Amino acid sequence: MFPGATAEREGADARGHESDRDGANFVVVGAPLDATTTFQPGTRFGPRRIRTFAESFDDYDRRTDQYFSDLDVTDHGDVRAWDDIEAYLEWLEGTLRDVVWDDAIPLMLGGEHTVSLAGARAAEPEVVVSLDAHLDLRDAYDGNPLSHAAVMRRILDDVDSVEELFVLGARTGSEAEWERAADDDVTVVAPEDVGDWSFADRLEGRDVYLSVDIDAADPAYAPGTGTMEPFGLEPRELRDVVRDVAPHATGFDVVEVNDRDDGQTASLAGKLVREFVFSNADGTGDA
Amino acid sequence: MFPGATAEREGADARGHESDRDGANFVVVGAPLDATTTFQPGTRFGPRRIRTFAESFDDYDRRTDQYFSDLDVTDHGDVRAWDDIEAYLEWLEGTLRDVVWDDAIPLMLGGEHTVSLAGARAAEPEVVVSLDAHLDLRDAYDGNPLSHAAVMRRILDDVDSVEELFVLGARTGSEAEWERAADDDVTVVAPEDVGDWSFADRLEGRDVYLSVDIDAADPAYAPGTGTMEPFGLEPRELRDVVRDVAPHATGFDVVEVNDRDDGQTASLAGKLVREFVFSNADGTGDA
Amino acid sequence: MFPGATAEREGADARGHESDRDGANFVVVGAPLDATTTFQPGTRFGPRRIRTFAESFDDYDRRTDQYFSDLDVTDHGDVRAWDDIEAYLEWLEGTLRDVVWDDAIPLMLGGEHTVSLAGARAAEPEVVVSLDAHLDLRDAYDGNPLSHAAVMRRILDDVDSVEELFVLGARTGSEAEWERAADDDVTVVAPEDVGDWSFADRLEGRDVYLSVDIDAADPAYAPGTGTMEPFGLEPRELRDVVRDVAPHATGFDVVEVNDRDDGQTASLAGKLVREFVFSNADGTGDA
Amino acid sequence: MFPGATAEREGADARGHESDRDGANFVVVGAPLDATTTFQPGTRFGPRRIRTFAESFDDYDRRTDQYFSDLDVTDHGDVRAWDDIEAYLEWLEGTLRDVVWDDAIPLMLGGEHTVSLAGARAAEPEVVVSLDAHLDLRDAYDGNPLSHAAVMRRILDDVDSVEELFVLGARTGSEAEWERAADDDVTVVAPEDVGDWSFADRLEGRDVYLSVDIDAADPAYAPGTGTMEPFGLEPRELRDVVRDVAPHATGFDVVEVNDRDDGQTASLAGKLVREFVFSNADGTGDA
Amino acid sequence: MFPGATAEREGADARGHESDRDGANFVVVGAPLDATTTFQPGTRFGPRRIRTFAESFDDYDRRTDQYFSDLDVTDHGDVRAWDDIEAYLEWLEGTLRDVVWDDAIPLMLGGEHTVSLAGARAAEPEVVVSLDAHLDLRDAYDGNPLSHAAVMRRILDDVDSVEELFVLGARTGSEAEWERAADDDVTVVAPEDVGDWSFADRLEGRDVYLSVDIDAADPAYAPGTGTMEPFGLEPRELRDVVRDVAPHATGFDVVEVNDRDDGQTASLAGKLVREFVFSNADGTGDA
Amino acid sequence: MFPGATAEREGADARGHESDRDGANFVVVGAPLDATTTFQPGTRFGPRRIRTFAESFDDYDRRTDQYFSDLDVTDHGDVRAWDDIEAYLEWLEGTLRDVVWDDAIPLMLGGEHTVSLAGARAAEPEVVVSLDAHLDLRDAYDGNPLSHAAVMRRILDDVDSVEELFVLGARTGSEAEWERAADDDVTVVAPEDVGDWSFADRLEGRDVYLSVDIDAADPAYAPGTGTMEPFGLEPRELRDVVRDVAPHATGFDVVEVNDRDDGQTASLAGKLVREFVFSNADGTGDA
Ligand SMILES: [Mn+2]
Ligand SMILES: [Mn+2]
Ligand SMILES: [Mn+2]
Ligand SMILES: [Mn+2]
Ligand SMILES: [Mn+2]
Ligand SMILES: [Mn+2]
Ligand SMILES: [Mn+2]
Ligand SMILES: [Mn+2]
Ligand SMILES: [Mn+2]
Ligand SMILES: [Mn+2]
Ligand SMILES: [Mn+2]
Ligand SMILES: [Mn+2]
Repeated sequence: MFPGATAEREGADARGHESDRDGANFVVVGAPLDATTTFQPGTRFGPRRIRTFAESFDDYDRRTDQYFSDLDVTDHGDVRAWDDIEAYLEWLEGTLRDVVWDDAIPLMLGGEHTVSLAGARAAEPEVVVSLDAHLDLRDAYDGNPLSHAAVMRRILDDVDSVEELFVLGARTGSEAEWERAADDDVTVVAPEDVGDWSFADRLEGRDVYLSVDIDAADPAYAPGTGTMEPFGLEPRELRDVVRDVAPHATGFDVVEVNDRDDGQTASLAGKLVREFVFSNADGTGDA
Repeated sequence: MFPGATAEREGADARGHESDRDGANFVVVGAPLDATTTFQPGTRFGPRRIRTFAESFDDYDRRTDQYFSDLDVTDHGDVRAWDDIEAYLEWLEGTLRDVVWDDAIPLMLGGEHTVSLAGARAAEPEVVVSLDAHLDLRDAYDGNPLSHAAVMRRILDDVDSVEELFVLGARTGSEAEWERAADDDVTVVAPEDVGDWSFADRLEGRDVYLSVDIDAADPAYAPGTGTMEPFGLEPRELRDVVRDVAPHATGFDVVEVNDRDDGQTASLAGKLVREFVFSNADGTGDA
Repeated sequence: MFPGATAEREGADARGHESDRDGANFVVVGAPLDATTTFQPGTRFGPRRIRTFAESFDDYDRRTDQYFSDLDVTDHGDVRAWDDIEAYLEWLEGTLRDVVWDDAIPLMLGGEHTVSLAGARAAEPEVVVSLDAHLDLRDAYDGNPLSHAAVMRRILDDVDSVEELFVLGARTGSEAEWERAADDDVTVVAPEDVGDWSFADRLEGRDVYLSVDIDAADPAYAPGTGTMEPFGLEPRELRDVVRDVAPHATGFDVVEVNDRDDGQTASLAGKLVREFVFSNADGTGDA
Repeated sequence: MFPGATAEREGADARGHESDRDGANFVVVGAPLDATTTFQPGTRFGPRRIRTFAESFDDYDRRTDQYFSDLDVTDHGDVRAWDDIEAYLEWLEGTLRDVVWDDAIPLMLGGEHTVSLAGARAAEPEVVVSLDAHLDLRDAYDGNPLSHAAVMRRILDDVDSVEELFVLGARTGSEAEWERAADDDVTVVAPEDVGDWSFADRLEGRDVYLSVDIDAADPAYAPGTGTMEPFGLEPRELRDVVRDVAPHATGFDVVEVNDRDDGQTASLAGKLVREFVFSNADGTGDA
Repeated sequence: MFPGATAEREGADARGHESDRDGANFVVVGAPLDATTTFQPGTRFGPRRIRTFAESFDDYDRRTDQYFSDLDVTDHGDVRAWDDIEAYLEWLEGTLRDVVWDDAIPLMLGGEHTVSLAGARAAEPEVVVSLDAHLDLRDAYDGNPLSHAAVMRRILDDVDSVEELFVLGARTGSEAEWERAADDDVTVVAPEDVGDWSFADRLEGRDVYLSVDIDAADPAYAPGTGTMEPFGLEPRELRDVVRDVAPHATGFDVVEVNDRDDGQTASLAGKLVREFVFSNADGTGDA
Repeated sequence: MFPGATAEREGADARGHESDRDGANFVVVGAPLDATTTFQPGTRFGPRRIRTFAESFDDYDRRTDQYFSDLDVTDHGDVRAWDDIEAYLEWLEGTLRDVVWDDAIPLMLGGEHTVSLAGARAAEPEVVVSLDAHLDLRDAYDGNPLSHAAVMRRILDDVDSVEELFVLGARTGSEAEWERAADDDVTVVAPEDVGDWSFADRLEGRDVYLSVDIDAADPAYAPGTGTMEPFGLEPRELRDVVRDVAPHATGFDVVEVNDRDDGQTASLAGKLVREFVFSNADGTGDA
């Protein structure tokens, strides 16, 4: 269970409206999919590891003067994954949609980035903000359109509500991905420019889905991920984006955390979940 | 490249009969599939790790008075995996069939156990010997009939040439698997009995495919595998079975090695590959 | 949650009789105490790690023809530890006593060996069987009578119901411990002799508490423990003792598992929990 | 032995004034206490690990044009810890007080942060500077007033000489801790502000004790610590504070280093010990 | 094989002009020497590890609009090392000289820094740029003039063509090394100043050899190296130097990568190899 | 310092007869040579690691009713290694010869096996007993006659006093080594036969040097070694040989322990040192 959250009752894994999370503002959902990871596997252990390394954080947040345990966060547990990705995403989407219908915000813990497709389908945002070293705009990867490397393309193309995508921290992609990224509905902010980037009014009045692929961070801060890409963001840059976007967000995930490090990656991911919750609840962003 | 083997030319990964392995007696084929691993992933690193940890072995084998490098072993390299298991198995089968048609014996390095289905299809044996902690006789796992946990069932049901299966070292399975194992075409030898087990005349004059799931060994000897199962075999017991079966075998694999240990598992796997080659070439088994 | 068990409701950590484990036959209780570990710390991660590595085991047990999930095992979760050992043991004892009063058998997952004192106090057995590399019969260690190295002495001296102690696999101790072990109420079986040891009628009709310090196993099988001691037991020897004793046992624990290995230790510990449950439920032991 | 230091004679662990460190300017004292670590244990290995990873540093320091081995550093060895924290701290204080009475500066290698209480008691400073991610101003933690999480509170409240506390790099704490931190005798400098922070005349003419909790650094630089807290300091920021404070310091420690990483943490800690010694001996700070 | 490169034919390890790398612009050469590593060994695994962790990089580079696989990079494989350093360096020099004579640029993957001597001898540059935490200007180390700690001294003193050495990121050395560094033919740029450093016209029209000792980076980014030295460079600083120097370079190496981390170090090293190739091929540097 | 031993005074590393080990019966000497390790390096950390993992052993040995700390064991510390193997061996031999001249028995902690040459030269035994997976009878390895793989050949050929060599547990070697092993002065006992092997009167009245290459053990028990070789000895078999040989031995070493495991290897090595000391002091062997 995510520290400071309340557990849903047993059986919650079976989707159903008779859940006991009445009044929850946020619902943690583990999505340990680990099927299309290209290089180093282990994202199946991401949700567990994030919960574990979040244990040492204080309940109280001084910046927003709030207690995490006061913010009505429920932990749904994990939606156990299997190897039929399409079926899994549908099932996962159902779980997340129930959260949305309960007027709560899903906090999804990946699992590979592919799970964000279920998140976006459930939240139906107008804008998606993706913190990622990669564009994830491939048409398909190894012939698989449901690959983590194609997830933002899927969201752009298949989720009707989505009008615009911001990719922050991206530093690599195929030529075709960069071409797709040049279209009007995509804005890419290079790692060097994220510190000075401001969403200004771009998110005002729009529903936003925020997805954090932990490999957006430099490998020094997040070596426990599937495809390290040097020259990345610093944690405070990730944090400040999360703070800025959270007040506008109706869905959130942090993905691509695995267990192949000393815990730095999960610690950072858990902190970003909390920053999201504090900032969304507080409603004022970083300013 | 497997130490002591000769590399095939570049491009060999693309299947074609114009290979330069003329005269090879054995062909190493890496099959780094890592798609249905249930618990700890990492079999994608199995082939690389086995080759690496085999580097410290002597070329000369005193028991059979042979040099490994004299036995015409070629290393084909890896058949790169992707996440369409069915398509991958077909492609892999093609590669292995070419080996068989060249009158050589494939030595497949897994990868998850599922790859043995390609091995059996290519070698078309009458008998399969499986060293494994698990029966792998499920009809399907998580709805997937091409799961590592169903591979022996697939081989029994779908590979026409196969008449009989021996599972040595098995110590766990579902009730349905044990029921299937009670049929006439399956013989299960418990870990406690493997030391005294003899194939007697059972393999005489028959084509055999030998598959070593490294989790047959006790976790002390092979912690780097996906699903550890205590109370397993000792390495010498595995070795003696390999020596016994090798003279009858037309195909061989060692599977389920991952990179989550200190190298013990890959070291054992590499040694068993060599024992197979020495014993097959020598033709006399352990006696 | 221990795989195959049912979770108790949230709040169960707060001791109270209104638990929902009505009808449970076995109750898993995590006791992550990690206060007096002499050498390598980490037993605080033992319960979590045992539960994790038990995930890959089959629900069905062929030897006893039973399903683990049919045997009414409830998982109480962990009784969170703090650094006042005496107070913690009392609190823990309360939790375990509730289990006993519910006519269920506690299955405690350590944590350091000290927690067995709470287990014995709650179960009030006549006989204690300890599988351990160490005698744990010190009067105190570093001046602390509540040290893991003194736990069997505490149990013998302070738990009135206890008449006799069997220590199996012990291979080291201080001179004073060996002297205490020479008394009539203690029987020590050396690792070399455990394989041939039989309890014969010694446990007949008596209430037994079975405690497994995982360092009883040779370090090859259980390197993830606080004080490795070479020349230990093989897993099948541990297993056979567990099978023999389980039908007589009213309390069980497995302790001293930490996270400083590749999972072998937790895998073995989880397996022994299951062997205990299957054998106790089956009631017939190993014969 | 700390590289470049001279060993005290055997028996030095037993406190006594007949030590052979006559003329020593600095005395390294290992304090491997590992009793109240909240999350990841292992600080007991801190002193050993710091000494080991300091082996690869050059003896010569170019900035101050000094040789470490010329600066009369003696290594007292470790003051072996046990689990009676109060008694241990008293014993440790005695060892450190001897150092102070010999007109030398103790360089304590932790061990958990609690040991700084012994350091402050022995050095009796007017000012304490703490580099730490945490405020450590709790009244008690889990009911224990001698917890690492309460050490600065203990020092403020119980060490009479102490007038003022600076906590640099702190980014988390309970609400009560932040309230205590708002008092006049405490100054907290957020991680973002440490780079521009200057002590100006604040330390002039006052005796200072400098304590470095290595978790002040961002987890990327120091993952081998008990409670990682993202968004931390960079090593050069830590270094510059050490250089600034060292000329005023009469006592120093670096704490909370464990063995759960690849050595980065111990390497950084060892470097900071040396920066302290060079800067104190040189007497001029960073300017 | 370095991802995106083409393998040389088998037998290429035996030096000879009948290689099939006709037309190659760059030739990767592994030089796994691991003989004089002072502290943590393992550079023998450097080349393998760099190749492995480069697998997850995109072929396409957006900044220069080039495909790595279009740039005619051949991978020669490793020049297997043995313990006669002098003989090994000669043999290695021969291999690298063949590359130079083929009008290609060697990309050497270390191995310890000593191998750069072979690189410089083969490339015969006028200028050497060394990114390194250390000066490596010792006359000898432990009496060995062919130590990694003396490699830049050897190059300066023994390679006739070399007129000038730039050491960027150096932060430690013996007093004698700093004195040698004060000579006119050496320029040292402290880590703090590398970000603002510009070669201006200093490299114009001169043949340059670029050597990257990965310990130039801060240990957070490169813990997998023999002698960590805190307070180092950030990856983008390393990258920008590589981009600046590459257009002038006729030889390149990245050295001192070992296997004692989670892959961050090899990932960074592989990225720098690619930045070198892209920038050299593009010819325009970072501007 | 080896637990239970007494430290020699500082400066002891510099050879000299004014040592303070008067009356010592045994002298621990660390020999961290790590120069010719073929595969996995790290033997330089062997002595430190053995001492560390020996910390958890009881002082008292029940079998022989002795206290380790009563047996006059002194720890000389390490003889720091450098890369001129020949010079190092001479220096090391001097240190060991001093031990022998003081009528004490050297207990050398390796380091690579090559150091046994210094041990044999110093002890001048008539018989050498080597527990090893390898014959170590090469004439040279990679052209180096002072390789670990040639150490027993060097001892046989170059140490005049040596008449006979027993290699127990050997299971691999080159053809030439096996031929040399067939000579009258060498006896090889296969791993399978070690359990039943008895020296009978073969050691009676002769001075014996006992060398334990830890890779004699199966990799399950000793994965932390340079060249794992499966199908090895069990720890009790190693132990029983040590017990048998110790009463006849005038020199002892345990070598080839590195730091690439979870401590199992060092724990076993430390235990064997103690078994040697207890058995030698007791004088009666295993019987
Ligand atoms: Mn992504
Ligand atoms: Mn990504
Ligand atoms: Mn299998
Ligand atoms: Mn299996
Ligand atoms: Mn115990
Ligand atoms: Mn024990
Ligand atoms: Mn602190
Ligand atoms: Mn702290
Ligand atoms: Mn260098
Ligand atoms: Mn360097
Ligand atoms: Mn050996
Ligand atoms: Mn050897």
